Amino acid sequence: MSPYLEEIVELLGERLSLSESVREQHGHDESFHASVPPEAVAYAQNNNEVAEIVKICARSKKPIIPYGTGTSLEGHVAALQGGVCIDISQMNKVLEVNEKDLDCRVQGGVTRKQLNKHLRNSGLFFPIDPGADASLGGMTATRASGTNAVRYGTMRENVLGLTVVTAEGRIIRTGSRARKSSAGYDLTRLFVGSEGTLGIITEIQLRLYGVPEAISAAVCSFDNLEGAVNTTISTIQMGIPVARIELLDEVQVDAINKFSDFNYPLKPTLFFEFHGTEAWVQEQSEMVKEISFEEGGSDFQWSAHEKERQKLWEARHNAYYASLALLPGTKGWPTDVCVPISRLAECILETRQDIDQEGLTVPIVGHVGDGNFHLLFMIDPENEKEDLNRYQPLNDRLIERTLRMGGTCTGEHGIGSGKLKYMQAEHGESLDLMRKIKQAYDPNNLMNPGKVIPAI
Amino acid sequence: MSPYLEEIVELLGERLSLSESVREQHGHDESFHASVPPEAVAYAQNNNEVAEIVKICARSKKPIIPYGTGTSLEGHVAALQGGVCIDISQMNKVLEVNEKDLDCRVQGGVTRKQLNKHLRNSGLFFPIDPGADASLGGMTATRASGTNAVRYGTMRENVLGLTVVTAEGRIIRTGSRARKSSAGYDLTRLFVGSEGTLGIITEIQLRLYGVPEAISAAVCSFDNLEGAVNTTISTIQMGIPVARIELLDEVQVDAINKFSDFNYPLKPTLFFEFHGTEAWVQEQSEMVKEISFEEGGSDFQWSAHEKERQKLWEARHNAYYASLALLPGTKGWPTDVCVPISRLAECILETRQDIDQEGLTVPIVGHVGDGNFHLLFMIDPENEKEDLNRYQPLNDRLIERTLRMGGTCTGEHGIGSGKLKYMQAEHGESLDLMRKIKQAYDPNNLMNPGKVIPAI
Repeated sequence: MSPYLEEIVELLGERLSLSESVREQHGHDESFHASVPPEAVAYAQNNNEVAEIVKICARSKKPIIPYGTGTSLEGHVAALQGGVCIDISQMNKVLEVNEKDLDCRVQGGVTRKQLNKHLRNSGLFFPIDPGADASLGGMTATRASGTNAVRYGTMRENVLGLTVVTAEGRIIRTGSRARKSSAGYDLTRLFVGSEGTLGIITEIQLRLYGVPEAISAAVCSFDNLEGAVNTTISTIQMGIPVARIELLDEVQVDAINKFSDFNYPLKPTLFFEFHGTEAWVQEQSEMVKEISFEEGGSDFQWSAHEKERQKLWEARHNAYYASLALLPGTKGWPTDVCVPISRLAECILETRQDIDQEGLTVPIVGHVGDGNFHLLFMIDPENEKEDLNRYQPLNDRLIERTLRMGGTCTGEHGIGSGKLKYMQAEHGESLDLMRKIKQAYDPNNLMNPGKVIPAI
Repeated sequence: MSPYLEEIVELLGERLSLSESVREQHGHDESFHASVPPEAVAYAQNNNEVAEIVKICARSKKPIIPYGTGTSLEGHVAALQGGVCIDISQMNKVLEVNEKDLDCRVQGGVTRKQLNKHLRNSGLFFPIDPGADASLGGMTATRASGTNAVRYGTMRENVLGLTVVTAEGRIIRTGSRARKSSAGYDLTRLFVGSEGTLGIITEIQLRLYGVPEAISAAVCSFDNLEGAVNTTISTIQMGIPVARIELLDEVQVDAINKFSDFNYPLKPTLFFEFHGTEAWVQEQSEMVKEISFEEGGSDFQWSAHEKERQKLWEARHNAYYASLALLPGTKGWPTDVCVPISRLAECILETRQDIDQEGLTVPIVGHVGDGNFHLLFMIDPENEKEDLNRYQPLNDRLIERTLRMGGTCTGEHGIGSGKLKYMQAEHGESLDLMRKIKQAYDPNNLMNPGKVIPAI
């Protein structure tokens, strides 16, 4: 065992694992990116342990990779330059819930579902929902969002403060419990989305929301994509605070019909959710119904029944698995771009044409209120290399198209190592300003190296 | 003339001013902080000019202080270490308005009222309203907010991207036009609130909102402060999206009654504003009325008439002048703290007690939905030094109390030089992380030196 690992064993005992299967599992996320196992996996239980491990690694110039639930999608946890994975899943305590302030403080290993279960009897909830039951530390680190960001914002808007272990092993708190502040640089927002490359997020202060009195859902299909997108634009421009507004293209609708036993018309379809009082929810859906009809929508189906609503959103959340079921045995490569909403129809149509020219089956879903959409490439494990080579140019063209339209190469999944190559094209000279921060905070490049900031 | 100023004259001609009155005017903001005039004032008209001036100053190691409208409140523009003031008020073009995307791009010298005038026929508006008709560059630099942050957020939430001139004189763009992104470090949020100490903000991409179909206002007075604060907490917890919820204490109500010819009871009073559809605005105000009554509120006055509404908010916006009129001839020193809303009543009551013990007349207004409140100290110019010495310990105790309750020493005014001394107490070790960024971006400490980051 390397001497630095021996030092960590002294600290953690059996909570440092060298097991091959544990290392392999911690070397990859839910994506197709190959596993690159760390030299060991350290299960930390508190801030001090994380800080001590970081100090040991810093002395030996060994990389540190933080790990929550491993549900990221761009190779975020691969130990590209060796070192230790710090698994914080055992740091899973909800530290405080402040009902009057609508906030809470959790350890980084708490998952979003765990938090909402904890909040069950408080009348409060945490809205951000990236699909996977990710850890809140990981969601913070990747600036995650999901279906209801259009109403509640992303992790950027919902993280109020942090505890971070720096590359020197210092335990630092950012932010305050105040709802707003003009006191100095916004370190909280700097760490949100930094993917473990500037420090390890161990505690998070989060905004909470009152559970709405009423929730309703609606589904509407459109003859063409423009109608669906224009409905979205008008809805938002009118200030209707839709909680969710999700687009599924005809391929995705087909997949969901088959998988979840629905019978929606094979057309571009919007799923809506409305939060509010009984009367306000009703009014919102009537307004959206009217907009939809003006834009050529039909079969507007509205429901306030919890069961129907749950079935609908379960189907939406199963979109990924429903799509994989179109080609059984495949695994998924979800892409993730975000454009100004005015360019969304154009961007999706050009992309659909690109896909069709290649003769491929690729469903599209979108958090259209944000201009964010995903293709799902299906990879046959038997033909993995060939499939990756087939889809990679499509993704490159998708991102080139997105950047040309003023968008971003990732709306919510993050950069990891998978999207490093697009950073220069997206950010140009401002990438140098990111690099300066990385160098100032982590001069030896030990914090999750090989992620977010491309090597020069 | 110093050689570096001669270089700037070559660039700008008569747009470099050495006039004593111009320099004096640019050496102070709207607060009591003494004027410290720059060596010269450079009126830049575009990004390239700003960049060239910065390069000239960098070569000669001369400080650069950006200036918009001079409406800041903590000595932000004082030329503490000499150098040149770059006045960007002539960079006042609205560069683009994207109606479908609900965003726009403006030069830093555009003021918020100018922008809203420009948007008049678009059905859109920009909500952030710090009182003064400040430049949007300055509002971005101080992370400003105001009365309707409770609904629309602060500059933090509403700035989508920036053009910044760095300390090296590079012109850099941050952010994209996408509504959300997980692509790398959040440089936009880093510059928001950096007060010219990391670079000069010359262009801003801003979120816009649809003008609501209906707006109504309401006023309600309470026997005690707790009732007003608990009404606020319940309103927000129930998810009622109040656009404004402002607290005026009895001293402030008295001042407004006298100044604006109102006749409100001399009690803690809430001013509300509701945005939405006709029906939804009505429902919101009914819900808030019910909550208010449960918390001991009385005289709930509701109005959807635009004139009455405007009169109400004009009175609120005149609170500052109304208070000064209580002691004619004085000038104002507005304090600015923000606490978790659960501690707001306690914090205001302790503060009121502190004021009363000193036998002073000090009105209090608060953006209570955010936990943000202001005292107004009235300074007699004839007795300025004495008055400052009287009020300074009160402000120190106010901030000590705020920090003890988990709050921040400034909710929306910023640090400038006036609040430098509280930075260590508020941020502790995380101040070192701010300092590292300052050193990485501005190693020669030329960008608005003496602000935000205390000298070691």
